[in-house]
Parts: sequence; C-alpha cells; structure tokens
Amino acid sequence: MPSAPGARRHDATRDAGGGRLPLRADLADEVPYGAPQLDVPVLLNVNENPYPPSDAVVASVARRVTEAAHGLNRYPDREFLDLRADLADYLAVESGVRLEPEQLWAANGSNEVMLQLLQAFGGPGRSVLSFAPTYSMYPEYARDAMTGWVAGRREEDFTLDPVYAAETIAEVRPAVILLASPNNPTGTALPLATVEAVLDAAARVEVDGARGASPVVVVDEAYGEFRRRGVPSALELLADRPNLAVARTMSKAFGMAGARVGYLAASRELVDALRVVRLPYHLSAVTQAVARAALEHSDELMAQIGSLRAERDATAAWLRGRLLDGRPLDVADSDSNFVLFGRFADRHAVWQGMLDEGVLIREVGPEGWLRVSVGTPQEMETFKAALVRVAGLEEAR
Amino acid sequence: MPSAPGARRHDATRDAGGGRLPLRADLADEVPYGAPQLDVPVLLNVNENPYPPSDAVVASVARRVTEAAHGLNRYPDREFLDLRADLADYLAVESGVRLEPEQLWAANGSNEVMLQLLQAFGGPGRSVLSFAPTYSMYPEYARDAMTGWVAGRREEDFTLDPVYAAETIAEVRPAVILLASPNNPTGTALPLATVEAVLDAAARVEVDGARGASPVVVVDEAYGEFRRRGVPSALELLADRPNLAVARTMSKAFGMAGARVGYLAASRELVDALRVVRLPYHLSAVTQAVARAALEHSDELMAQIGSLRAERDATAAWLRGRLLDGRPLDVADSDSNFVLFGRFADRHAVWQGMLDEGVLIREVGPEGWLRVSVGTPQEMETFKAALVRVAGLEEAR
Repeated sequence: MPSAPGARRHDATRDAGGGRLPLRADLADEVPYGAPQLDVPVLLNVNENPYPPSDAVVASVARRVTEAAHGLNRYPDREFLDLRADLADYLAVESGVRLEPEQLWAANGSNEVMLQLLQAFGGPGRSVLSFAPTYSMYPEYARDAMTGWVAGRREEDFTLDPVYAAETIAEVRPAVILLASPNNPTGTALPLATVEAVLDAAARVEVDGARGASPVVVVDEAYGEFRRRGVPSALELLADRPNLAVARTMSKAFGMAGARVGYLAASRELVDALRVVRLPYHLSAVTQAVARAALEHSDELMAQIGSLRAERDATAAWLRGRLLDGRPLDVADSDSNFVLFGRFADRHAVWQGMLDEGVLIREVGPEGWLRVSVGTPQEMETFKAALVRVAGLEEAR
Repeated sequence: MPSAPGARRHDATRDAGGGRLPLRADLADEVPYGAPQLDVPVLLNVNENPYPPSDAVVASVARRVTEAAHGLNRYPDREFLDLRADLADYLAVESGVRLEPEQLWAANGSNEVMLQLLQAFGGPGRSVLSFAPTYSMYPEYARDAMTGWVAGRREEDFTLDPVYAAETIAEVRPAVILLASPNNPTGTALPLATVEAVLDAAARVEVDGARGASPVVVVDEAYGEFRRRGVPSALELLADRPNLAVARTMSKAFGMAGARVGYLAASRELVDALRVVRLPYHLSAVTQAVARAALEHSDELMAQIGSLRAERDATAAWLRGRLLDGRPLDVADSDSNFVLFGRFADRHAVWQGMLDEGVLIREVGPEGWLRVSVGTPQEMETFKAALVRVAGLEEAR
C-alpha cells in the first residue's frame, strides 16, 4: 500500500482499554491517508491550484452561501439538478460536448464519485483493474468498496499499450476499469484510440453475476483541463458508450480543493445506478451553492489555466535542460498541473533537502522519481533554485 | 426494502443503449432513497427543524464561509481538530460529559458516519444487528458496506427487552450493533441499563476474523437533544466502553439538515479506525466553517429545542385525546422531534388525504402508523385541523 512519509501508523492490534476493536482484517496494516499537511512556504505537493479564489469568486460564494444559509434547516435538493445543469453548460464550453443535466453527477470530491462507482459496480467477488504507475488512492477506494484490486502495467514512458490493455482486460475480467488521463503521478494523457481499445475490449467481457453486462470504464480526467492543445477529452466518446464514465473535479482547474466537489459525466443509465448507492442528501446545500458560485466564473478560471499550462511547460523544459551527474534529468510528458522528474539515486534525500529549503514536493511514483505541482512563477523560481542546490544540478549546454 | 411513496423505480435490467451495466446483483431491485421532496405548504415528513437559522446564525455562516473561501484552492484540514474541539465543548454543555477532541469525529451527515463505521468494522462475512422497527436507512447502509443485515425485534410498545437483546447478540454474533435512541420512527429512548446490557452481551462475543475483538455498539442519538428531562445520553457510558460509539447530527437540533454534518463520540481508538476508511479530505473547508458557525450559537439553538419539546408533548397529548372510530388513537412515547401515531386501517389514504390538505407527513413504521414531525405551533394547528377532517377524529371526553 502507498504510504506517505510522515503518516502515523494505525495499530489495529492495540488494546483499546480492555476490549479490542473488530477492525476488518484487510485494514489491520493500513494507515490513514497520508500526504503531509505541513506549514511550509512553498506547497507544491498535492497538485493544488496555487491561485486563491479572486475577490469576485469569493463574493459569489458569499452571496450564494448566505442565500442558502437561510434555508439550512431543510434537507438539500437530493438530485441537485441546477448544479448538474451548470456543470453540463461548463463542459459544453470546455470540451465542445453537450450533455444533458441527467448525465452529470457530483459528490464530495471525485474520491466519493469513485467510491460510489465501485459500490454500484464492484463489491465482493469482483475486481477493478487499472494500469500502474497510477493514482495511489485507487487501491484504497477498492478496499473501501470491498472490491479486488488488480494493477496492470504501463510502458517505460508511462503510456498504455492498447494491445496489452485489451489482453489484460480479457484475462482479468474486471467489473470496473479505471484509467487516469492525464495520469497521476506521471501526467500522461491517453489517446482516444487507446480509450476506445479499452472500451472495445471491455465490451467483449461479461461481468460475473451480471448476465450480458460489460465492465464500466472510468476515465479519470481530474486534470483534464490542463491537457495540451489538441489532446482530446474522453467526453467525446460518451454518445455511443453507455458503459463509459468520465470523472472530473473542481479541485484543480477551478481552484476549489477545499470545497470538495468532484463529478462525472456518463449515460443516464449509469448515473441512475449511482443514485441507488449514494447516501441520501450526500451533497450539502452549501456545497451546491459554492460549486455554482465557482461555475459562474469559469471564463476567468479557464484563463488562469492558460498560465498554469505555460508554467508547466516551462518547468518541464527547464528540468529537461538540467544535468544530474552529467546525464539529463528524465522528465515525463505532462498534460497535468504537475511534472514527474528523476531519477534520483536517493529520492527521499532530495525530497527532504527540498523540504529543508521550504519547498514541499511529493515523493511518489516509481522509485527514483519526484513530483512537483505547478505553482506561481515565483514559487517555481524558488523550486528551481532549491533543486539546483539540493540535487547539485548543472545546466546542459 | 423501504420504499417511499412516489420514489421512481430504478430498472437495473434496462438495456443501456446497447450495453448493459454490471450493477451488483443485490442492487438489482433497489430504488434510490426515497422521501418525496414535494412543494407543499406544511412539511412535517423528514423531521427537519421548522425554524430557519436566525439572522445571527446566517451572519456567522456568511462570515466564516467568506473567510474560508479565500483559501479554497487548498485542500481542507483533513483532521478538522478545531471543529472536533468545538463539538466536544458543545457536548460537555449539552450532556455534562467532557470528551477530548480526538474522541470526536464528523462526516457529511450521520449517514456517512454510519457508512464509515461499517466500512471499518463490517464488510463481507460480517453482519450488523439492529432491532426493528427502526430507521429505514440502516439496511441500506449495510448494503452499501456489503455487510449482512439482521433485524431483531422490539416489543409492542417499541422498547427493547434487554434479555432478548442479549440472547440475540449471542446468537447472531454481529460485528456491529446499531441502537437508535431515541428510535426513528417510534421516538423511543433506551434506558442506559438496556444499553449497558447490550454492551455486556457484546463483550461476550468474539467477532469472526478479529481475534479477541468484540462487536462495536453504535447508539444513534440523532434526536438526542429532544429527549425528555431525566432521560440520559449514552455519552455517559463512553468512559469505560472502548467499543461504544454515540452518533449525533447537526441536522435536527441545530436546524442544519442542509449543511450535512453528522458526528460521533467514541474512544480514540475507535475514531482512529475511522481515519483509515474515511476518504481523504471528506469534510470540506466550507462544511467545517458552517458547522463551527452554528456551534457558536448553541445557546440560542438549545433554547429553541425547549419549544420544540413542548410542542412535541402538546402534539402527543392532543393525539392521545382523540378518538378514531370510537377508540383512542395509539401514540408512541416520544423523546424525539416527531410523534408516531395510529393505527389506521388504511394509512396510505390518510397520508394522501393529508397531502391533499397541504400537509406532508410520513408513511413509515409498522403497518397502520403514521409519523408527524414537530413543526411550528401554527404548522401543528394546521396539521391537527387537517387530521380531524381527513381521519374523522373525535375528541375524547
């Protein structure tokens, strides 16, 4: 299991004052998630948007929440169709794909969306398949939904070979297939042809205990808005693919990590299945108000994404121009708001050295690599200067 | 499965445009929850607090959320210890029991708290035991957490016989025992002696696959603040009972159903186990801000509870003074903000008749009974007048 540095170990065998707790056996060695929340000047570790909400966004949030507050004694709208309509409008602009509000779904962070997907389509005796290295939380979602976890592999350059993927799907016969695109922590986006190969392979599988039903394919586009120009979104495939779900989040592009709003787009039938497993009233009236307030300002936020993309490309180019022990650094192509780079003989020492310099990055991904989130230009200057000192980088000629 | 009138049936076998979805077999006949959200003048169906937040509460919410909004680009405090400290302070005043912040836990509604409990301590091969009639969502939580559901029985007067409960626990050997007190939909509070008998019986059970560990006993005090004077809270038992969790919510007493804040109090060890299964950052910065804003005003809100209790007692007394076909109505003793009454030969007709009069109550509980939430004095006048007309009640002499 992935375990972040600094996570406190949970001791399941600890005697709880005379009685012991019946923790599930598969949780006995688990630790709570995990990314350190440290008070450090430069936070480049959890792929947050470095730009706080503008005064205009804050004002909209305040206005809508105040309005909602007057009715907080009542349960929220369980189906939140106004928010779903706003999300559909936003995606139409962002990706050119027009969806119906009933094709959208939202929850408290895309991790709750993922949990609901696995609660509906996974469960005991079933498995979820993904391709590693990928997002470290996926196995934990599987565990939370009591679903088997199978990790296939990505190629050396972190792409996914469609032929290998199809073979693996036929062999594993998963109930759910999880594809992160752009992938975390590598930044790799999948070509639509690869997603289609996966969908076609899935269509040839019949899931155990669900006669005639094929696996659900989830494309996790948490970082979708940061993709480079010309890189398409899997939203374009939704029209003909009832088993496809494309997950997004407001945490990254919208700079709303603190508001916890994840969502997905899929067929109405797939969304309807999530309505069976979602906890009633899972999305508070306040969360709905905050999300709608942020969506009012999507033009402004999309402009900001342009600068983050540029900074990301500049950071990748800078890293590519640096030598470590006389050899150029390896830098993964990124369609995200972070860059994975390496490889360091002792990555933990570099991570710690950066932290000592006041720059928190992330020790994640295959051995030897480190991940840096894209911050403001000033934060990236601090990052680069610190990395040169800590890792002893030289400029390539 | 409980199914509210008007719930749309989810057809799991429906062909989803060419492919079928691999919905879990045990969900195939399920419908999404369920209570109708209708636009009716008098809403007395989901035990909401009828009083909207005061201007002072709204102002605190606006102030705290605006403050939080400036930092929404960052993930929220994952451990929300400030909120947990505020909750501990509140419980110390409300119940006289002083707990440490680390003994408190919160989530998006007490239903998420319950799900987390079952994710940690339930799961495949384990079961959760409760005593019916009780809250209709409990079996759905069990299903969401892939945990077996066993319902023992309550007595005719909706109390729980401690000897029968202990025998059932020994026989079922559940991993989790769920006791609602005050119970929904009956309003019945359990004496502490009954809770202690359940805890003692649980201590004699060893949960499968958890050597030496006893079942977790959850006392769901969602309506705890409405208990009559002299009725104690299970919080008083926490000091010596590491396997006990007492769940509460801000939805009812605090009039914050729209904010979705449930919480529990337990041993530190039990809370630590929940930290393993909770989704990272499950509680948004905005939810934390709203909850803390409401807790600032707990004095005001506790005063309001006094009037709701009085109105509840007056409603129960009024119902007890009414004859149906010459016999007094049955009215369950209530320590909650609702009253269960009956029994009607055709309760659905009475429910529908009330709805036609603009009064939405709830068709729930054992056959023949109906449940009314306690509203404002004016709403209760409307309710009573409508009920006299619809059910043809007469005044007892």
